[in-house]
Amino acid sequence: MAEPTHDSSSGITRTSRRLADGREIIYFDDTPSAPARTAVDTRDLPEQAPRSQVRRDPLTGEWVAMATHRQTRTYKPPADLCPLCPSTPGRPTEVPESSYDVVVFENRFPSFATGVPGAPAVVDGMPMVPTAPGRGRCEVVCFTSEHTSSFGSLSPSRVRTVVDVLADRTEALNQVPGVEQVFPFENRGEEIGVTLHHPHGQIYGYPFLTPRTARMLDVAASYHDEHGRMLMGDVLAAERAAGARVIASSAHWTAFVPAASRWPVQVQLVPHRQVPDLPALSAVERDDFTILYLDVLGRLDGLYDRPLPYVAAWHQAPARVGRHLCWLHLEVFSVLRTADKVKYLAGSESGMGVWINDVTPEQIAERLKPGKG
Amino acid sequence: MAEPTHDSSSGITRTSRRLADGREIIYFDDTPSAPARTAVDTRDLPEQAPRSQVRRDPLTGEWVAMATHRQTRTYKPPADLCPLCPSTPGRPTEVPESSYDVVVFENRFPSFATGVPGAPAVVDGMPMVPTAPGRGRCEVVCFTSEHTSSFGSLSPSRVRTVVDVLADRTEALNQVPGVEQVFPFENRGEEIGVTLHHPHGQIYGYPFLTPRTARMLDVAASYHDEHGRMLMGDVLAAERAAGARVIASSAHWTAFVPAASRWPVQVQLVPHRQVPDLPALSAVERDDFTILYLDVLGRLDGLYDRPLPYVAAWHQAPARVGRHLCWLHLEVFSVLRTADKVKYLAGSESGMGVWINDVTPEQIAERLKPGKG
Repeated sequence: MAEPTHDSSSGITRTSRRLADGREIIYFDDTPSAPARTAVDTRDLPEQAPRSQVRRDPLTGEWVAMATHRQTRTYKPPADLCPLCPSTPGRPTEVPESSYDVVVFENRFPSFATGVPGAPAVVDGMPMVPTAPGRGRCEVVCFTSEHTSSFGSLSPSRVRTVVDVLADRTEALNQVPGVEQVFPFENRGEEIGVTLHHPHGQIYGYPFLTPRTARMLDVAASYHDEHGRMLMGDVLAAERAAGARVIASSAHWTAFVPAASRWPVQVQLVPHRQVPDLPALSAVERDDFTILYLDVLGRLDGLYDRPLPYVAAWHQAPARVGRHLCWLHLEVFSVLRTADKVKYLAGSESGMGVWINDVTPEQIAERLKPGKG
Repeated sequence: MAEPTHDSSSGITRTSRRLADGREIIYFDDTPSAPARTAVDTRDLPEQAPRSQVRRDPLTGEWVAMATHRQTRTYKPPADLCPLCPSTPGRPTEVPESSYDVVVFENRFPSFATGVPGAPAVVDGMPMVPTAPGRGRCEVVCFTSEHTSSFGSLSPSRVRTVVDVLADRTEALNQVPGVEQVFPFENRGEEIGVTLHHPHGQIYGYPFLTPRTARMLDVAASYHDEHGRMLMGDVLAAERAAGARVIASSAHWTAFVPAASRWPVQVQLVPHRQVPDLPALSAVERDDFTILYLDVLGRLDGLYDRPLPYVAAWHQAPARVGRHLCWLHLEVFSVLRTADKVKYLAGSESGMGVWINDVTPEQIAERLKPGKG
């Protein structure tokens, strides 16, 4: 068992332990008085044996993950059975401690895991369909022990801790053998399929470059070849100059509705300096992001006067390739097109990859700008 | 007004007329005794003025459509106000006639339309975001005048008519100036966002190559360069030889669950002969498809013992480019992962383009094979 480490610059104490089935759990405590994290997982859990597989679609060249053990995953448990709350006497959860600040643990129903057995092959009789064990890592990040809270309700210092935690996990997962890309994200709200309401995010360590990132790398490379500049740098400068879609900015970050938004609500938060990923952000840039993001989340909840369901997706550089072409940013988007109507991904979106948006980015930006709440 | 044309080989009488706001409506009658289609649209409809625009996302290079006039589109009307039912005295609908067999008309709330004004440009101050008027054409196809029916309940002869109608419309829309790709599809079920329950499909004439088709063309071209053969031909031969995922086949078509399925339910119906699009199908191939597709739809509804929500998406060759590399096929897929649980497209799917599937294609195929219903 590793000793807790205390980072005096961030003030965070980091303690790594194991759950009953061997999964790692890491406590990140930002409360100076936090007790030593020594609680033992008393549950009788079966040993983890995830059997996920990835296969490459011959027609699109894109990898698809198949994780059949996830069929039995926890589905909307009542609040008093929440597996992400701290444990109480007689009711052990995924977190053995009776309290925590931020905690990360390996997903019990992972899409990818380090222990998946097997070797690369092809689907029987299908030489054009390569397959590989779904090796990687999936983690859950609990932002707070308060079940009914939300990311937007966290204190600035807690958000700052979460940023450090995501940076820590990105650095660690980039080192995991086979992981090609680390993707921290938060799904929030039933409309996007969230089955556990406790405020939490996830981190996927994919065993391949994702189709979206591969595509963005290709486009950024072409742009750099043609113009000798970074695409995101030019987009950021143009958005800041145009102003029509900028909803908030600070010394080190700008938040804007992208000029070709595909979602009814979509905001990109972009640092002014090119950094490949979260670990590369300076302390000042992290502080600055914290304030800006809380401001943006507040406006998003104000848009329809209700908690907005959203996906918050961190676009980071892959572990090994194209890092110099990547520009870290957070994209927050929602499927909600009115207070009670969802945008579905039907024929055009799911069949052909063409998004049809009912609003223009300028209309959404206008509603998200300060004083329009 | 064009005179009705009667195709004696198909037995279909085709009558083109105009709705009150100038949109075209085309009756395709397969009933020999069908009356002349002379009814006039008596509604006082405002002239059509769709203002949709397309913009190219600078980070992905993909076009996104913005159709702000669609915000006011009809949303789940009660059955007695269905705009797709035939008109009755005092209650005019989108179809002026008091009966019809199959009818096609231009969508009142189109994502793309021929009359959109404007010229290609860039978003103000954003040279990396090209924009263009959303010129194209969107049509609605009513499969039957029976409001409570479904595609799977149609008679074989009616399905055969629908195939001819989609071929007719593909041929016509491929000729519309600016249309680059014609996409016939059916969205079925509330879980996929269907707002009108009357059995109907849609046809999009896109003003650009869709991202999905562009991607598939690239992959097919690389495969052809490397192997000197058609990718889909090899996939089809391998699937037929392997058998594990084939759920039905006939003289001219095979239906299989693709080896790298991304959806909980996914079936591809592929003709044995390479044809670029629906118009290229022979009469025998159309007859054969009709029987096979009705069989497959019946099994899909049997899977969870309930009407399956699905998207049925026709993959056809673009109007102008890469036609020799395309192999027509129909892909039917569903978001339903159990009888009452939907697969949501959250962080991994919508953020990174990585689908996580809870089932293997072999498991789904096993349940869809004959005798397993």
